[in-house]
Amino acid sequence: MHTFIQLSKLFEEKFNIRHFSDQPETLYGPAQYILNLGGKRIRPVCVLMGNQLFDEIDNDAYYIANAIELFHNFSLIHDDIMDKAPMRRGMQTVHTKYGESTALLAGDVMLVKAYEHINKIKLPHLQKVLSLFNNTAAAVCEGQQLDMDFENRDIVSMDEYMHMITLKTSVLLAASLKLGAILGGASEGNQNHLYEFGENLGIAFQVQDDYLDAFGNPDKFGKKVGGDILANKKTFLMIHAFETAKPAQLCELKELIKNNQADKVEKVMQIFNDCKVDSWATALKNKYLQTALKHLDDSAVLSVRKKPLQQLADYLMMRES
Amino acid sequence: MHTFIQLSKLFEEKFNIRHFSDQPETLYGPAQYILNLGGKRIRPVCVLMGNQLFDEIDNDAYYIANAIELFHNFSLIHDDIMDKAPMRRGMQTVHTKYGESTALLAGDVMLVKAYEHINKIKLPHLQKVLSLFNNTAAAVCEGQQLDMDFENRDIVSMDEYMHMITLKTSVLLAASLKLGAILGGASEGNQNHLYEFGENLGIAFQVQDDYLDAFGNPDKFGKKVGGDILANKKTFLMIHAFETAKPAQLCELKELIKNNQADKVEKVMQIFNDCKVDSWATALKNKYLQTALKHLDDSAVLSVRKKPLQQLADYLMMRES
Repeated sequence: MHTFIQLSKLFEEKFNIRHFSDQPETLYGPAQYILNLGGKRIRPVCVLMGNQLFDEIDNDAYYIANAIELFHNFSLIHDDIMDKAPMRRGMQTVHTKYGESTALLAGDVMLVKAYEHINKIKLPHLQKVLSLFNNTAAAVCEGQQLDMDFENRDIVSMDEYMHMITLKTSVLLAASLKLGAILGGASEGNQNHLYEFGENLGIAFQVQDDYLDAFGNPDKFGKKVGGDILANKKTFLMIHAFETAKPAQLCELKELIKNNQADKVEKVMQIFNDCKVDSWATALKNKYLQTALKHLDDSAVLSVRKKPLQQLADYLMMRES
Repeated sequence: MHTFIQLSKLFEEKFNIRHFSDQPETLYGPAQYILNLGGKRIRPVCVLMGNQLFDEIDNDAYYIANAIELFHNFSLIHDDIMDKAPMRRGMQTVHTKYGESTALLAGDVMLVKAYEHINKIKLPHLQKVLSLFNNTAAAVCEGQQLDMDFENRDIVSMDEYMHMITLKTSVLLAASLKLGAILGGASEGNQNHLYEFGENLGIAFQVQDDYLDAFGNPDKFGKKVGGDILANKKTFLMIHAFETAKPAQLCELKELIKNNQADKVEKVMQIFNDCKVDSWATALKNKYLQTALKHLDDSAVLSVRKKPLQQLADYLMMRES
């Protein structure tokens, strides 16, 4: 059995190859470029961990891990086009370096390549794996569309935001774990516990991400604090503030969002503090984390085999294990 | 057994439904929009014809026909973004009507939906069908990339153009026929004959398309004659002229391409005539058509069953049958 860190290294070594044909290099060079930028490879490692929960890792799990990582990179390329993002992981995004048309096509061909990896697994699991992969892929697209829709709206409810963030970020984590479990011959019950573990953990991670943007230590967080506030992003914090602020605060908040005054971050943070957004978000994160861990507890497998998934939760929640 | 026309109507009736979930309508509305624009549905009907060559049409052939038509529309949405095309079939393109980001995502989710149809077929054919579909999808992306690459080059050889056009337009026709044949239980030999029939017919069609742009009757062709010349498109005709023009004509041709003078079409046509591009293109088209028909002849099935495919060739070649 391998730890989370060992599996991450193992996957990285296997994945660190040329994934595409030589020609046309104008298409496959840009596709390979984003894979070479690296990344944490959390999702494909989830496939391996979901699989390892039940037995030694099956070779099919590596195919699906590849498919998941290629799918994730396909979505990054296309999201970066839509978001007009110039940089990713400290390097130029694909469309910035190679143009939007090539980036669009490189994403397309990466998605096709993901399906080619899926097609390598043994027949008995193929239909179920394809079905879950397709549903997940569609959900991720839906999440991205909702995220764009919300940008053009003044008000987004907590339920709507939760739904969007679940589609956009959590279902892929959840599906990765479940795909590994399917290949490991898990029962339906265990498959679903793992899916719920992943989905709830993903939401807890997103709450934390929103939280750290406002309340994080800038030295540790690695991003400019208050970036979401400056960009008027709807986050868990902002939506909670909207839903709990007193009328006068609500007016002030709307005014702050409309006008980008110099002390905007400071003023919004004051409202966040008045609305106790801090403790609310911490409680929300813990609620989802506990739900995730409960599903892991309830999975009917040897406790010792759950260790890597607990390590994953610790890693994502930045807790010392 | 059904004729080509009957199969076209049959497919259109079955395909003329809502293909996507209700929500989010901001994503699935635009995806449905392009399907509602109609089209000749040649490729999905090829799946049905390839299948019908061997037996009554299997229900799986309809699933694959759906997948092929969704794939085709995915590629149209994305190509229109890349080409910055404002109109398709007399209506606004998806990105013109709904914005580029939504069009990009609508294309993505349409491709995923295509795979969901593939996943409905019976297990014994799934891996082979997926493999051919994936290879074809990647080839179409490669063709589109090469087409864009060629726009930025002064010289493209006939071999390079033939390779690009085969990937961009012929392999999908060829694969559609072969997919139908696979589902019909065809032998490898017959599968390959059908593939070759489709690929050669597709090339003949493309030669004709390039030919008609320059030499066609504007009343019948429905497009402005000389459009490719005005747009400096590398076509079979232009490349042949480049490869056979005398030095003085070559200089003139290059000059005409550089400067968009008022009598450009007329002058280029003069060079085309001097280089006998007209009869050369007709001969080239016929060569590919004959090769296509030879492969159909050589398919080991009842002659009467080949009739719809001969009707397809007649239809695409605009011959009275």
